[in-house]
Amino acid sequence: MPTPVELLTIGYELLIGKVVNTNAAWLAAEFTKRGYSVTRITCIGDNEDEIASETKRAIERGAQIIVTTGGLGPTFDDITARSVSKGLSLDCVINEEALKMIEQKYSSLNLPITPERKKMAELPRGSKVLRNPVGTAPGFAVKKGDFLVVGFPGVPQELKEMFKLYADELFPPKGEMVEFFVKARGVPESSAAPVVERLVKANPFLYIKSHPQSSEGSSYIEFHVYSVTSDPRIKSACERVAKELASELIKMGAVIV
Amino acid sequence: MPTPVELLTIGYELLIGKVVNTNAAWLAAEFTKRGYSVTRITCIGDNEDEIASETKRAIERGAQIIVTTGGLGPTFDDITARSVSKGLSLDCVINEEALKMIEQKYSSLNLPITPERKKMAELPRGSKVLRNPVGTAPGFAVKKGDFLVVGFPGVPQELKEMFKLYADELFPPKGEMVEFFVKARGVPESSAAPVVERLVKANPFLYIKSHPQSSEGSSYIEFHVYSVTSDPRIKSACERVAKELASELIKMGAVIV
Repeated sequence: MPTPVELLTIGYELLIGKVVNTNAAWLAAEFTKRGYSVTRITCIGDNEDEIASETKRAIERGAQIIVTTGGLGPTFDDITARSVSKGLSLDCVINEEALKMIEQKYSSLNLPITPERKKMAELPRGSKVLRNPVGTAPGFAVKKGDFLVVGFPGVPQELKEMFKLYADELFPPKGEMVEFFVKARGVPESSAAPVVERLVKANPFLYIKSHPQSSEGSSYIEFHVYSVTSDPRIKSACERVAKELASELIKMGAVIV
Repeated sequence: MPTPVELLTIGYELLIGKVVNTNAAWLAAEFTKRGYSVTRITCIGDNEDEIASETKRAIERGAQIIVTTGGLGPTFDDITARSVSKGLSLDCVINEEALKMIEQKYSSLNLPITPERKKMAELPRGSKVLRNPVGTAPGFAVKKGDFLVVGFPGVPQELKEMFKLYADELFPPKGEMVEFFVKARGVPESSAAPVVERLVKANPFLYIKSHPQSSEGSSYIEFHVYSVTSDPRIKSACERVAKELASELIKMGAVIV
């Protein structure tokens, strides 16, 4: 079974629809490619109790990794480190390495260390500091027992660069995503449904999701046959199932495109 | 206080990062414009127990409305109606009106009613059926006590058209989103942070979120001053605070753009 990961994306801007949660999709795709299984994506506001309790609940639900995005900056509502600490029952303390990074940054800008800037160095006790090559706020990775909580910034460019820097160390590849697409015209999704069900149940190592690209009348469907796996034999098995699906659809009158 | 709404977006395609959750952002913006408060967006897979328990938990968390997206179609993993019914302790039964809509649709395509097609008419007992003007699967709206659960399809075009058809009836406007933007160059986010905090704490009817558009060095920040409110006086109050913010930023050397 792939390692279960939960994403906790934080910020009121997501809840008012000002920002589309592209971070979640990007992270989900990255984890999937590495052979992990994202089991849930939660989006909540900048609220200490909610962040703390959701961190705790992710562990209760069996997640082995929780990745947060957002809330690491200098404003009053950047409270992720403090809230995650609360959820993990860890102290949130000044991290000397993080403070040094921040001091260096502001000294290069000829700016003093203010309480708002210093706050960005307050991280869960025992955190590994994650360097931010794009922005200022460092990230953190902290273990509580077997659970790993990793805090990334919410600014997409910062998140992506930091993920790339630390992914191999924090999230070593455990498998891969193998996938095949079957695109068919002329068979409604509801006609294909029994075939899809039979193939998924006969091959529990994979999943098939049908994505209708138009309504049932002028049917054009993309079937996504995929597996997140560490077993190299699964790839050819998925390919075989994709071919079987295509040939079943052709029998039903579909044109494979 | 604006009515709290939770969005429950369902589908493994979101958890593998194949699909960006634009539905969530679109719905969140629509609800915000109508004076509602989206308190949480949860994304889970096509899993009966998880959908059922998350429906229950949304009610426990104090949501008054739960909106689901996805899982209304004909495939084996389209299980939203059944799972929501379970979460609400309601039977999931053939809805005659929904069945008629489905029969009409397939009869116009010269296709018979199969079990997969009939399944789309199985809705929580007592549901109001929501007509799907774009696709085939009807949606539903069902009350359990004071709680309203509304199920929309996951195909964005279907979701949007159905929302527009039923929004005024199901989600009557209770206020509006008033918002002002202050765009400033030349002041780092961390320097502006104490001013933002003071203004938010002095004006608890609004929120100010700073969105850095670049790193702390070459600072360009968009400040979003907003309120979701039914009080027409709040608009001018927000405008006043936005102006005060701008003038404070100018004092700190910012250029308002």
